[in-house]
Amino acid sequence: MTMRDPRFLILAEGSFTPTGSKTANACIRYAPQRVAAVLDATQRGATAQQVLGFGGAIPVVGSVDEGLAHAPNALLIGIAPQGGQFPAEWRAVVRRVLDDGLDVWSGLHTMLGDDPEFAACAAASGATIHDLRRPPRDLQVARGRARDVAATIVLTVGTDCNIGKMTAALQLLDGLRAKGNRVAFAGTGQTGILIDGKGISVDAVVADFIAGAAERLVLDAARDADIVLVEGQGSIIHPSYSGVTYGLMHGAMPHAQVMCHQPSRTAIRHNEWLPIPPLGEFIALHERVVLRPAPVVGVALNTYDLSDADAGAAVARTARETGRPAADPVRFDPAPLVDAIDTFHRQRTR
Amino acid sequence: MTMRDPRFLILAEGSFTPTGSKTANACIRYAPQRVAAVLDATQRGATAQQVLGFGGAIPVVGSVDEGLAHAPNALLIGIAPQGGQFPAEWRAVVRRVLDDGLDVWSGLHTMLGDDPEFAACAAASGATIHDLRRPPRDLQVARGRARDVAATIVLTVGTDCNIGKMTAALQLLDGLRAKGNRVAFAGTGQTGILIDGKGISVDAVVADFIAGAAERLVLDAARDADIVLVEGQGSIIHPSYSGVTYGLMHGAMPHAQVMCHQPSRTAIRHNEWLPIPPLGEFIALHERVVLRPAPVVGVALNTYDLSDADAGAAVARTARETGRPAADPVRFDPAPLVDAIDTFHRQRTR
Repeated sequence: MTMRDPRFLILAEGSFTPTGSKTANACIRYAPQRVAAVLDATQRGATAQQVLGFGGAIPVVGSVDEGLAHAPNALLIGIAPQGGQFPAEWRAVVRRVLDDGLDVWSGLHTMLGDDPEFAACAAASGATIHDLRRPPRDLQVARGRARDVAATIVLTVGTDCNIGKMTAALQLLDGLRAKGNRVAFAGTGQTGILIDGKGISVDAVVADFIAGAAERLVLDAARDADIVLVEGQGSIIHPSYSGVTYGLMHGAMPHAQVMCHQPSRTAIRHNEWLPIPPLGEFIALHERVVLRPAPVVGVALNTYDLSDADAGAAVARTARETGRPAADPVRFDPAPLVDAIDTFHRQRTR
Repeated sequence: MTMRDPRFLILAEGSFTPTGSKTANACIRYAPQRVAAVLDATQRGATAQQVLGFGGAIPVVGSVDEGLAHAPNALLIGIAPQGGQFPAEWRAVVRRVLDDGLDVWSGLHTMLGDDPEFAACAAASGATIHDLRRPPRDLQVARGRARDVAATIVLTVGTDCNIGKMTAALQLLDGLRAKGNRVAFAGTGQTGILIDGKGISVDAVVADFIAGAAERLVLDAARDADIVLVEGQGSIIHPSYSGVTYGLMHGAMPHAQVMCHQPSRTAIRHNEWLPIPPLGEFIALHERVVLRPAPVVGVALNTYDLSDADAGAAVARTARETGRPAADPVRFDPAPLVDAIDTFHRQRTR
């Protein structure tokens, strides 16, 4: 997947919120220069800054016509509904922009490029449909080959979905590079792939090949890196997606893990019957279910919904209770986590 | 998937052995009346009984022509190569039998019905191609709905692949029915589906839907059953397939588990670097990683490669060391496992 300088109108209708539009928000955070406007009629007239707390003057528009006035050259499907299916009400929007010659980028399970109507529209106007979740055709089953990788493999893991595993990895790249390490990011989901320009959406491969896809990502990323930061997925206790989480972990074979958690979240999202265990207990379980030793070297907290005082207190309490360095790498300085990984890497390779 | 009384020529070229041809062997064990002959030139002239120790006079033939003399009406791809791809050297065999009007049944990941050449051959001769691993089109993500099932859900789990999880489930059906229970089998792999005539191959669905497929299987099977025996897959420590194992377990949400193990196996097959932990430790881990309590109520041993004396000793030792009822349900009376499940079910529902 190579980029050709997209400038996106992001479709986030009815969902443009700090937690409701994961793909849109990450694109605005890490590649704001690629964003022309966000389409969500329920927030028309606001800016990204007002809705998310970042993103500056990127405007929220109420219609496709209004969005086209901001000169996008592509439409990005900016939300990832559970199950990844394509909502029928968006069909007219996609057809319209394809007819106008805009590319379409999608991270849904439904492959828009395989839709005969969309394919015909794109062919007629010369537009390209990018399905970020489309798996490679030549995947193999895993064979434990990540064991042979010299680079230090670090996997971000988490207590739940949508809790900051991709963001934590991305926030640590600069700090680790500043310490002289060659660092690669291995994107494993549609948003990580969108931002990094490559990767495999491990939740979209045939189930037998999850670990094989993770192994391939790690082997590729490790070729020119001292440290590979692998974007984790789901949670080992998630009732819908744990298979992806485990397959990714066992295929990537990390040397170390970074635990991501949201202090205010007490149960798995959309599954209130399933409480998240105490963090220390959950970390111990994570260190037990890997296939080779992989200590949790730090905890990345997501405190976006806490006051400054409460966020600081949560970080201090987490460090104390888990005995690990902790930080909110978005809100505060990620240095504690950068230092933990850098130290682990130096000790492992000295 | 409905059966139309197939009578199979089973393709097992170079692989017809007690451990090398899982699908062929299970078909011969549980549906011998459906088997006309086995194709494996390396064993030509033998009988199934001689090769496997069961299967009676079913002949092993050395060529397709020789096999056709036994009047099959279908070809069954009887082995499941790692990764499930279609070996190129079998292409001529499949084309040949399709041209002759025989149906083809396949459990490979490669969907033979999607192969333009095979599809054309089948259309011309009126043959049907059955891809046992083809997933349903309308899968959903899991939502923990198996929690609402009244029937007792029992999952067979194991220390490794190809160790007897499907066989253990099938061997317990009769005994549990004899005690007055309505029992359903939920097939989760190509061979279980072949034998039972329905099911979903959970290793062939898109990764996000593993647990959803398991949940659907359990809900469907539980409709007319007191006890649902779910065929397990892989192992929670398998470096290639653990994602499938966990997704299946977390979607099926068993009330109880039956642990399957081969006493002579000390490491994961094809992964000698990965030792199988002591059985007691492995059972404790399995009881830890489920999403609601699910005790391991018995241990099913696979002792096919041991002497009678050693097999009996292994069963006794396993029962003593794990504190659970143990049996080899193929070689010996499955009663200890039947009783354990029946007792668990009665206590749970009284």
